[in-house]
Amino acid sequence: MATEQRQDQISDEITAALESGSVQEIIAVSEKGHPADVATGLELLDDERRDLILTSLPADTLSHLIEFLPASDVEQALDQRTEDDQRQVLEALPDDELADFIQEVSRTEAATFSNLLSADKKAALDKLLEYPENTAGGRMTTAFAKLRKNLTIGQAIQQLENQKESTEVLSRIYIVDAKNRIVGKLRLRDLTFNPPECLIKDVMITEPITVTADTDQEEAAQMMQKYDFVALPVVNKKDHLLGVITHDDAMDILEEETTEDIEKASGIGGERGDVAYLQIPVLTHFKRRFLWVLGLAFTALTSGWILHSYEKELSSAFILTLYLPMIVAAGGNTGAQSATMIIRAMALGELSTGQFFRAIWKEMRVGMLIGLVLGTCIAAQIHFFPIEQVDKGLSSLAFAGVVGFSLTIQILSSTIIGAALPLLATTARLDPAVVASPAITTLVDITGMIIYFAIASALLAI
Amino acid sequence: MATEQRQDQISDEITAALESGSVQEIIAVSEKGHPADVATGLELLDDERRDLILTSLPADTLSHLIEFLPASDVEQALDQRTEDDQRQVLEALPDDELADFIQEVSRTEAATFSNLLSADKKAALDKLLEYPENTAGGRMTTAFAKLRKNLTIGQAIQQLENQKESTEVLSRIYIVDAKNRIVGKLRLRDLTFNPPECLIKDVMITEPITVTADTDQEEAAQMMQKYDFVALPVVNKKDHLLGVITHDDAMDILEEETTEDIEKASGIGGERGDVAYLQIPVLTHFKRRFLWVLGLAFTALTSGWILHSYEKELSSAFILTLYLPMIVAAGGNTGAQSATMIIRAMALGELSTGQFFRAIWKEMRVGMLIGLVLGTCIAAQIHFFPIEQVDKGLSSLAFAGVVGFSLTIQILSSTIIGAALPLLATTARLDPAVVASPAITTLVDITGMIIYFAIASALLAI
Repeated sequence: MATEQRQDQISDEITAALESGSVQEIIAVSEKGHPADVATGLELLDDERRDLILTSLPADTLSHLIEFLPASDVEQALDQRTEDDQRQVLEALPDDELADFIQEVSRTEAATFSNLLSADKKAALDKLLEYPENTAGGRMTTAFAKLRKNLTIGQAIQQLENQKESTEVLSRIYIVDAKNRIVGKLRLRDLTFNPPECLIKDVMITEPITVTADTDQEEAAQMMQKYDFVALPVVNKKDHLLGVITHDDAMDILEEETTEDIEKASGIGGERGDVAYLQIPVLTHFKRRFLWVLGLAFTALTSGWILHSYEKELSSAFILTLYLPMIVAAGGNTGAQSATMIIRAMALGELSTGQFFRAIWKEMRVGMLIGLVLGTCIAAQIHFFPIEQVDKGLSSLAFAGVVGFSLTIQILSSTIIGAALPLLATTARLDPAVVASPAITTLVDITGMIIYFAIASALLAI
Repeated sequence: MATEQRQDQISDEITAALESGSVQEIIAVSEKGHPADVATGLELLDDERRDLILTSLPADTLSHLIEFLPASDVEQALDQRTEDDQRQVLEALPDDELADFIQEVSRTEAATFSNLLSADKKAALDKLLEYPENTAGGRMTTAFAKLRKNLTIGQAIQQLENQKESTEVLSRIYIVDAKNRIVGKLRLRDLTFNPPECLIKDVMITEPITVTADTDQEEAAQMMQKYDFVALPVVNKKDHLLGVITHDDAMDILEEETTEDIEKASGIGGERGDVAYLQIPVLTHFKRRFLWVLGLAFTALTSGWILHSYEKELSSAFILTLYLPMIVAAGGNTGAQSATMIIRAMALGELSTGQFFRAIWKEMRVGMLIGLVLGTCIAAQIHFFPIEQVDKGLSSLAFAGVVGFSLTIQILSSTIIGAALPLLATTARLDPAVVASPAITTLVDITGMIIYFAIASALLAI
């Protein structure tokens, strides 16, 4: 059977088993499919059905799934179980996943759960809990391989033999000195393909790249992406080796940070957590979204106040209203484009705040070009294909000139504002994503009205 | 010296060397630092200085850097070199990077470059070039390890010995049958820590997860993220093993796709390529941005036409203009929030189009809540803290009612539109990101004006 068919079939079998709710079928299908697929299938069920399955699965089946489930589901699955079951499931979690989970539940539950753990697991957990969730220390695992440099390869293999299944990454092995300071790294292939009497220090790479435990998780993940690393060692201030961040964590971190940036850019506050969309309560959505909407609404009052204050101009040339929304919208759209270009270039490490003027100069030229071309198009449309008769006492050419010129200036200024705000925010050590779309749109709405009415007053001599 | 200081110092040394332009210094610093850091430093230089360095560095130094440079820079660096230099640099590129590069340059240059390659390298390249750039086949590497299942571990180690340095990933080894069909996989640790007489087929994991070569690259990368894979094997329709996608490629793919989504969501068309922001010509920016701006500008004419057609209402109650921008903006902001929530939930695999009504129902409740609270706030502001005197013949309470009620309805309808459009787009097999922000904002601008004026006409009996 071809690959795709085989995989589609397994995923159909998982869905069927989950929907049947039969524990026997779910156990059977869990042994056949990848636990990540079973977890995905579970997330797509409705809450009641999922809770029922999570509470009725045997601990052994659950322990394979748990790593791929959101913390709220793990909690749900554990709450109604015996202590033995809880222990079995928790012990099966990798150290770093366990730490993430414990950080997400309530304090009392965290204490209850960690008291169930074996001494080794608890020690590893306590070490990880010292660091905030969103730092390199909070995301690292302590299940990695380290060796002293004066061993032979034969001795090294013997030493690693015991921990070969408990370590998360074995493809990179770190070499430390007597004080647990990292002095080099080697790949598992360097052990496998070299003679046993060869010395570790002769095959290792010296000066590996490391991060300190308090480094922001995003920075650590970006380093791994930049250097194409499978694992990145984490050290403390004294350079003692504490743990490693693995490639799969780096991917998860980058995804979380992307989600955060995209949400911020749409005016959604707070943190998302790892609860699936449909399971987030309406009130949580409200809390994350209302403040921005409220703030922007009151800012938009400024636009309203400007519009309202041009009563004289509008009463003598009501046709101005026909192109007002276009001028405002064109500013919002070009401003958002510029902001996106700049924010993304900074996120990809292609642009630094030191290049402020080069970036603004580039956006100015783009804005001027878009403004001129669009302004000319619209002026031509007004003059040659008018939608409405121009009010008495106005010439069609003069009105075309007002709209075309305003549009050009509005697009140019919006492009500059859209580019400058994220750059300035970064210089001020703020997150550039926060000033993006909604804030820029609101700001250029205001500038658009001012530009339009000022030009109209001057050119039409209202 | 502590980690951070050491790394800052290396990065300072790289900057200093690059800015000095001295080839000797750059060679020295390239041997000390990671090539990715040198490449980053190069990208931050201005074009002229970067070109000068790229053409004057010796081929050996360049060949280490090349993997981390954008295609346009690699081309620049190769163009003025001898054939020997060109060959040395190209041979140093991993197969998949080489294929990416060849796909980015002109046809004639691609032919010239590939004729320089050794027979082995050319064969690997041709195999990769069979698949489009954005498929699993186009992103895979052929430099991976595969073994036949009836070998012993001792034989396997011997066989891998020759290719141990040329393979990109050795931590996952794939097992094939006589027809090159994949039958299992094992980890390098399974070879290292098992007795040499043990059989491969006894330690391997059967039924590994694979993708076919024509699978979209994003789907492949998402699978790797879901399953926490270091490498994902790629097969053809007949299940023959062709290559593997590695974890670092998966990260790059996800980043590219994120950039594409974010750009589309801001109305930026076309593909970005891997050229740094400041190096993209103004005309390219213009081409990618103008069409959306033009289309949205003409759509905004509809809003203008609606505004213009309410001359009677505005002349009898000019105070309506004071809250018009707020009502329009609140719709745009809440619509964009909903769209972001839905698009992101779908991208994270948490929401499927089959859950259309559950998602709309959730957004309706969120929209109703935000609308009611904000509508009440603004109505209270109008009645108790008026900014402007309400026009003659209108009661302050009636006006507060019009604005508050319109705002509630506008937010509710925008939330539904914002949630429904990306879901409908996905159902119609369109990219949900395309219908996001700018299209939704323009659409809800129109609905906002209609709602506001309709409610005002009815309630104020204008």
